[in-house]
Formats: sequence, structure tokens, C-alpha cells
Amino acid sequence: MSNKLKPFQEFRQKMNEKILASGNKEIQRFFALDKNAYAEGALSTETKELLGLVASLVLRCNDCVTYHILRCVEIGLTDEQLYEAFNVALVVGGSIVIPHLRNAAAMLDEIREE
Amino acid sequence: MSNKLKPFQEFRQKMNEKILASGNKEIQRFFALDKNAYAEGALSTETKELLGLVASLVLRCNDCVTYHILRCVEIGLTDEQLYEAFNVALVVGGSIVIPHLRNAAAMLDEIREE
Amino acid sequence: MSNKLKPFQEFRQKMNEKILASGNKEIQRFFALDKNAYAEGALSTETKELLGLVASLVLRCNDCVTYHILRCVEIGLTDEQLYEAFNVALVVGGSIVIPHLRNAAAMLDEIREE
Amino acid sequence: MSNKLKPFQEFRQKMNEKILASGNKEIQRFFALDKNAYAEGALSTETKELLGLVASLVLRCNDCVTYHILRCVEIGLTDEQLYEAFNVALVVGGSIVIPHLRNAAAMLDEIREE
Amino acid sequence: MSNKLKPFQEFRQKMNEKILASGNKEIQRFFALDKNAYAEGALSTETKELLGLVASLVLRCNDCVTYHILRCVEIGLTDEQLYEAFNVALVVGGSIVIPHLRNAAAMLDEIREE
Amino acid sequence: MSNKLKPFQEFRQKMNEKILASGNKEIQRFFALDKNAYAEGALSTETKELLGLVASLVLRCNDCVTYHILRCVEIGLTDEQLYEAFNVALVVGGSIVIPHLRNAAAMLDEIREE
Repeated sequence: MSNKLKPFQEFRQKMNEKILASGNKEIQRFFALDKNAYAEGALSTETKELLGLVASLVLRCNDCVTYHILRCVEIGLTDEQLYEAFNVALVVGGSIVIPHLRNAAAMLDEIREE
Repeated sequence: MSNKLKPFQEFRQKMNEKILASGNKEIQRFFALDKNAYAEGALSTETKELLGLVASLVLRCNDCVTYHILRCVEIGLTDEQLYEAFNVALVVGGSIVIPHLRNAAAMLDEIREE
Repeated sequence: MSNKLKPFQEFRQKMNEKILASGNKEIQRFFALDKNAYAEGALSTETKELLGLVASLVLRCNDCVTYHILRCVEIGLTDEQLYEAFNVALVVGGSIVIPHLRNAAAMLDEIREE
Repeated sequence: MSNKLKPFQEFRQKMNEKILASGNKEIQRFFALDKNAYAEGALSTETKELLGLVASLVLRCNDCVTYHILRCVEIGLTDEQLYEAFNVALVVGGSIVIPHLRNAAAMLDEIREE
Repeated sequence: MSNKLKPFQEFRQKMNEKILASGNKEIQRFFALDKNAYAEGALSTETKELLGLVASLVLRCNDCVTYHILRCVEIGLTDEQLYEAFNVALVVGGSIVIPHLRNAAAMLDEIREE
Repeated sequence: MSNKLKPFQEFRQKMNEKILASGNKEIQRFFALDKNAYAEGALSTETKELLGLVASLVLRCNDCVTYHILRCVEIGLTDEQLYEAFNVALVVGGSIVIPHLRNAAAMLDEIREE
């Protein structure tokens, strides 16, 4: 449909590799922390990915939202669940979140079609 | 301990009543939407309160954080679960979130002591 | 000129319809509140649209800015008035707003040309 | 009532004088620009103060909100008008704005009592 | 490589000229202040451009980041220095900054290739 | 003067200890990353502390600003240098930063008096 998913994924992977290859060890450590934050623990991965999704929506970062929707779909969350999370983000973050909801809904469609 | 909980709750209740008594119907409707966002649905109330907590932490609103910690404790979430949610907020939002984590940890202590 | 207006409007309409068709009633209610906020009342629609425009600029949301400029032009605000609103946003929000001013100025041109 | 107005005004005046006395000419120029932004022009001072108020609310700065409410009351805006502006800020900025609305409503009361 | 640099520079110059030609004197003054902020003084231009870069990263403005990287390269800062500044922004601003780091790294590559 | 420095330092130390004692290893790792970000490297500690200060100002976090001013004074930066950094933050972040500048100027005074 919108065909924005594949370019996003390719750019993301290529630039992450470039950043990690820069030799800055602190940035490498941050990337590891970022990955660990969503691992199963006292809270489930499902809950943590939803936390990442809503945090990304209220902070209004389209790329972060796309990444967390991809993960949410991979681990089996339903559209109804995702839209309830969208609503929490919308109420907390206000109408300024709506353009990011539009992007989120478009990416969710594109991911489901694959 | 810090004795910030009770003044917060009293000011919150008094001013919410004042705002709702102002006669602005749209604001009243928004307050209703805000309450509904955390109701049990396709996602549990536990998950939704954690979403509200993490959204409040990354947007760095101490009062909102205190409110959601109160709710999280009421519905039975453990400290270990709350600290995992704190960590997601810290990683997503960065060190700028740390002063709000300090406040969150202090409020959590005060709530547990009651 | 930049031809960004039409694609924005089409994507906006299509995705709003999709979001409203998702069946999440709370999101539908939020969209209604969003629309009502700019209705004539104790403040004029002109003033409220300018409030929406400046809020969108300081929160740095290009799509929201484009939407409010469209509305401001429809209801008869002049460029001189819009640039004074731009200046308030610039002073309150700082130089980080400048890229969004560039976008706003380009969209204003494109809207005036139609 | 809350008696927060006078300490705010005294601290504001004292520290503004200190900052302006620091000898940094660029900061002095910025303060002049800040003042000019609300001067009567193609938009009225009333409209511009409301723009400053809503920008301050969505950016969630209590001190800035207090300052603009003071100015709005001085130039004759009514509570009904101010609450409509509050509502625009609430819808655009979301529930995260609510603690700042509580502060705004308390300061408005304190200002009206004087 | 990504070929985003030239379109950015052309759009930036064209729209800055348009905004400055609008006749709003306050906006013209703001643009002058913005330029002066990075002039050699008690702090070096190198330090000030790095301040502008990190401020732009934590506020997550790609265009501002691109502009400051251009300036940093012009005045001789090394990649190692820039990546240490990237790391400060990443730690302060959190993982939400990562998409902007990817953009920054891509623009830095494109600038070095010229 | 304002006597806000000592309570800030005591609360900061006590709550940092409490958070680190919670047993959440990821949070402990983040705190280590946060400390490392300001270590001497390709950029000097002076430059990095100024980066932390300006990032904290534009993100409008009083506690973070106070901490970085303390560090800047410890490592020998002058008031003139600090005010030039304040100005960069003011221009980038806008008038919404001014209340945080007032706090910064007050804390700087209190630190110098010790």
C-alpha cells in the first residue's frame, strides 16, 4: 500500500550498523540497553512492547512507532488491543498525536498485508 | 516520609472540582474520556495504567506519575513490575527522566507506607 | 509549487476514515472533541484557529500546522496576521521552530496559489 | 488562597534583573523580542496574550502560564474566554496538560481575588 | 549517497529568504539573534556549534541537526568528536533520539563525501 | 540565598541510592552510562558538561540544570562562559526556557556563595 515499511527497515538496519561501527563504545552499550528493556521479566514482552509503543506515540516519533508496531504484530497483539493503546496515547498526548496515529494506522495496515 | 502525597491529593481533588464547575462542557467531556481510557477492555486495566505511567514519565509530569503509581499500587502491581516500567521510560526518555524517577521512587515509598 | 498540499489532504482524509472505522469508540469521541474545540463561542473561530496554529508550531507538528493554516485562510485571516502568529510561536518556542516556519510559509504560499 | 502569586512575581522580577545585569547583550536582546511579540499589531494584544497562554499550556510551563493569565486579566479577558483557551490547550496537548490546568485555575482565582 | 543534503540546503535558503521578505521585523530580529548565538566569544565557535547540535538532537529536529553538522564539519570537528556529542544527546534524550542519530550519521557521511 | 541547593543534593543522593538498591540491573547500567557520557575523551569534560547543561535547559529540567551548573563550577567554567551557554539554550529553546534561566541564575549564585 504505502510501501514505506521496506525503505524504513533497510535504512534502519544500514544506519544502525554504521553507528555501531563508528567505534564509540558508549553508544554500543546504549543500543544493548535499549534491546534489553523489552525482554521478558516481571512484565511480559507484550506489555513492554506496548509501553514502548505508547511512549513513542506521545513523544511523536514515527520511526519508533513503526518499529514497535512491527514487534507488537510479531508477538501476536491484535488490532483491537493496538487501538486501545493508540487511544491511551491520544488521550495522554492530545490531538498533536493524531498525525502519528494516521501514520501508525497506515503502517499497521502495511504490516498486516505482508 | 516526604509527605507530599496528601497535599497532592487534596489540591488535585479541589481543583478538578473547580475546573469541572466552570461550566465549560468540552473540558468536562475531556475529563470523562481521560477516565475511560484506563477501563478494562481488550487490554487489562493493569496494562493500561502502566501505559499511563510510562507515558507520564517520558513526558516528565510528576503529578501524572504520582497519580498512576497510586492506581498501579491499588490494583496490585509489584515494585519489581513498576521498576521494569520505570526502566522502559528511562531508556526511551533518557537521563532527563531521572529526576522524575527519583520523585516516582519517593512517592512509591510513601504510598507503600500508608 | 511544492505540491505537498494535495497528498497531505488525501492521506489525512483516508486515514481519518480508517481510524474512525476501527470501532474504537473513545477515539471517535476524541475526534469529536477536537472538532468542537474550534467552534465559535466566547472566543471567535478566528482566535481559536490561531490558538491551534501556534500550539501546533511550538509543538512542532508540520501536519497540524498545515491543517490550521488551511483553516485560517478559509476564514479570512491575512498573511500579516499569520506572520504575527508565526512570530509569537518563534519567540516562545525558539529557533527549533524555524524549520516548521519554513514549512508553514511554503504551505501558505501553496494554499494562496489555489 | 494559595498565595503563590506574590512569591512568583518577586522571584521573577529579581532574577530577570540579575540576568539582564549579567552583561550578556544577546540575552538582553532576546528579552526585548519577547516583550515585543505581544504588542498590538495586525493581531490584537488580547489575541496575542491568548496565543502566549495556550503555547505555555501545551509546553507545560507553570510560570509562563501564570504570567500570561496575569496579563489576560489585566487587559480584560473573562473567565469564560480563558476556559475556552484552556480547552484548546487541553485538546491539543492532552491529559498531560491537566496538572497545569489545575495550577492555571488556582492562579486565576488568586488573581481575581486581589 | 542519500542525496538529501542539496534539497535541504535549497529549500532552507529559499524559504528563509521568503520569511525574511515577509516584512515582519520581529522575525528578522530573531534570525539575527539566532546567527549571533554561535559567534566566537567566551566560548569558542566549536563549542557553541556542538551546543547547537546536541540541543537539536535532544529536541529531535532533523533539519537543525543537519545544519549544525554542516557547520561542525566546516570548522574542522572530527567524526570522533561528533560521535561523542551524539552520545551525550543519546544518553540525555534516550532511545527516542536514535532515529535522529541515524539521520545525523547519514548526513555526516553525505557531507564528508562532498 | 535561596537555600535550594542543599535539599536538592540530599534528596538526589538519597533517592539515587534507593533506585540503585531496587535490584533492577538495567537501571544500574543506565546510571553508569550517564556518568561515562561526561568523561574526558575526544571532547573535553568542560565541553561535555556544557553540552549536558544546554540539553537540560532546552528540555527544561531544573534539577538536571542545577546538577550540570554544579559540575561546570567545579571544573572552573566562568560566569561569562555559562551565560553564553544560557544564551544558546535561550535562542534554541525560546522564551519557554526563561523560567529555567531564572532558576539557573539563582542556583549559580548560591553555588558561587558557598
